[in-house]
Amino acid sequence: MPTSSYFTILSNSCLVLLFQAFFISIAASSDRHTPENHIRTRAGAPFKVALFADLHFGENAWTDWGPKQDVNSIKVMSSVLDTETPGDFIYLFFYLFLKATYLTDFVVYLGDVVTANNIPIANASLYWDQAISPTRSRGIPWASVFGNHDDAPFEWPMEWFAASGIPQLVCPVLNSGEECSFRGTSRLELMKNEMDNNVLSLSKSGPQDLWPGISNYVLQVLSKEKPHTPLVYLYFLDSGGGTYPEVISTAQADWFKRISEEINPDSTYKNGVPELIFWHIPSKAYKKVAPKFRIHKPCVGSINKEKVAAQEAEMGIMKILVKRPSVKAVFVGHNHGLDWCCPYGQLWLCFARHTGYGGYGNWARGSRILEINERPFSISSWIRMEDGSVHSEVILS
Amino acid sequence: MPTSSYFTILSNSCLVLLFQAFFISIAASSDRHTPENHIRTRAGAPFKVALFADLHFGENAWTDWGPKQDVNSIKVMSSVLDTETPGDFIYLFFYLFLKATYLTDFVVYLGDVVTANNIPIANASLYWDQAISPTRSRGIPWASVFGNHDDAPFEWPMEWFAASGIPQLVCPVLNSGEECSFRGTSRLELMKNEMDNNVLSLSKSGPQDLWPGISNYVLQVLSKEKPHTPLVYLYFLDSGGGTYPEVISTAQADWFKRISEEINPDSTYKNGVPELIFWHIPSKAYKKVAPKFRIHKPCVGSINKEKVAAQEAEMGIMKILVKRPSVKAVFVGHNHGLDWCCPYGQLWLCFARHTGYGGYGNWARGSRILEINERPFSISSWIRMEDGSVHSEVILS
Repeated sequence: MPTSSYFTILSNSCLVLLFQAFFISIAASSDRHTPENHIRTRAGAPFKVALFADLHFGENAWTDWGPKQDVNSIKVMSSVLDTETPGDFIYLFFYLFLKATYLTDFVVYLGDVVTANNIPIANASLYWDQAISPTRSRGIPWASVFGNHDDAPFEWPMEWFAASGIPQLVCPVLNSGEECSFRGTSRLELMKNEMDNNVLSLSKSGPQDLWPGISNYVLQVLSKEKPHTPLVYLYFLDSGGGTYPEVISTAQADWFKRISEEINPDSTYKNGVPELIFWHIPSKAYKKVAPKFRIHKPCVGSINKEKVAAQEAEMGIMKILVKRPSVKAVFVGHNHGLDWCCPYGQLWLCFARHTGYGGYGNWARGSRILEINERPFSISSWIRMEDGSVHSEVILS
Repeated sequence: MPTSSYFTILSNSCLVLLFQAFFISIAASSDRHTPENHIRTRAGAPFKVALFADLHFGENAWTDWGPKQDVNSIKVMSSVLDTETPGDFIYLFFYLFLKATYLTDFVVYLGDVVTANNIPIANASLYWDQAISPTRSRGIPWASVFGNHDDAPFEWPMEWFAASGIPQLVCPVLNSGEECSFRGTSRLELMKNEMDNNVLSLSKSGPQDLWPGISNYVLQVLSKEKPHTPLVYLYFLDSGGGTYPEVISTAQADWFKRISEEINPDSTYKNGVPELIFWHIPSKAYKKVAPKFRIHKPCVGSINKEKVAAQEAEMGIMKILVKRPSVKAVFVGHNHGLDWCCPYGQLWLCFARHTGYGGYGNWARGSRILEINERPFSISSWIRMEDGSVHSEVILS
């Protein structure tokens, strides 16, 4: 090989490295990694959110089947984060040629991150950590809410008692006389573990007077161009389940009303900041708008395979939401066989898409993506499947 | 008052005190207070056992109703222990005139001692301690088995979420940021607390390979006259429920078979030691012998107000029991509206009587009493009601 060829390779490599260093410095200069209550958009790029719903990590850990599902779920998340393509040329260039960034700005873990009622160890956070690893390893910040399976106590399989003993578990009780605690990892412990060990986590343990609900908090997406004007507010609510009833309480509804009126008083005017809401279990309002058979307009989606499994009671949150024109959409998981969005008053009620291989149902896995454009302002959404395909695009604002 | 009257009073008082001292020394000389795996009969007296079933302490602690029920349950136990009269003259004399002893030799707490799913504090043992207090305060030894409510996690009342908050609980979370643990007190913790703090408790944490079942153990009643010959064996089994399925497992059945053949190999002959069995939830065999409407011979009892709520599965224990002629009877609680005994093969299947004011049902409260006579050997049983009345006497051997 002639010397000139070495030069060509070297200079090309240097160019790549220089571009990478340049881009990484741009990424680092943004404060999207700050574990605070806000996240910034990137200049000139849409703000993109991936919803990971119902991952159900930790199922049947005593068989090959269980851990295999978790590996598959990691593949789904990785595929979604790696195949979402950028909206503008400069990012497309960095993405395609330099692999120096990911195009998803933010991930929402929409509950049932783990199937704690299947986890026969004391600390379910070990499985929770696995579930957030694809997002963390890509340097993408995230927030999470609780589902009904996250803090549930272990449910002993009946068949173990018909066998000659409980041979599947290696547990201190059998050796040291101390008991295994199989009583579930509390919401507060799960959240504390996530927050303490992850600078990229923007999750919060909400106000103590909303307890036993924990994942109640609000984040603001700040515009890169107008650093003091929120582009959108993201509200997270704990819809219960597991160790307590599946409800959004009166206290939570009151809290939402108070906090939203405080930070976003212009709700009733056109210049109010748009608001998006995330929780796990669909409210009863979802039953009212659910398509009967086929999904038809104005609803948008691809699967309508089961009945809405709604919260046990409605205690005021929906009445408050429909009265706020700034609220554009609610996003829930829980039903693995539903992925539609339907309008309800001025807002949209949307299901995410079953992302995990854990949990019931064999419908193909995917992730609902949200894309927020600043000028002109728009919120759109689609579903990105594990195989890279896209469907069910809908404009939510 | 003349001096002679003082003398009369003094000498009478002295006589009483002397008798009391004499009796207490007799009582103390027996080792019925030893926390071991045996208990001795009193010379010349029948061995009497009171079954306290379904006390359900700790219900609705946030209302007046709950604590009131627990006071009522203590009254039932006190009444039963104070009104059971002795079988022979000398004890009757001590009992009636000197109040120096109680005529019940032993108490069995037959599960559902507490309603843990109603207890919004971390340590259900505080309620357990209240439930055993009438027995402990009278110096009577006891043993306990677990029911399905004893280790259950707290169930949050739905109505609390419709209110403006959870004002009923004073909890560290509201002050210090630490979470209240409402995940139930484990069987092992409950049992450890009972055993560690009560010299009168003969309860045991059973073999670790029977876990998660805990209350699996055997006690022997030793004859005062023949100190090395057991008069009867008492077997206690954990019938599950609460944090795991309502079953007696294959492992427990195997353990019973092995241990009973080891300590009582003569089972198939007339000189085998009689055996009595105690657990909480009726096995499916109870459904087979249950009276259809009115209780008629060969069954004996006074209330037949509901269907047998049996264990979820039968994994071998009943087959083993019916093959052992030494097994005379099984005693269970769980169904508050049933108090009958019915024959099943060579043995009797008996319900206790709902003792507690906690738990469902308003049938009058009482306690099944067992009386074991040594010569000639007999096991009889009756139900002693809270008001002192007695009914449903039956000979079980």
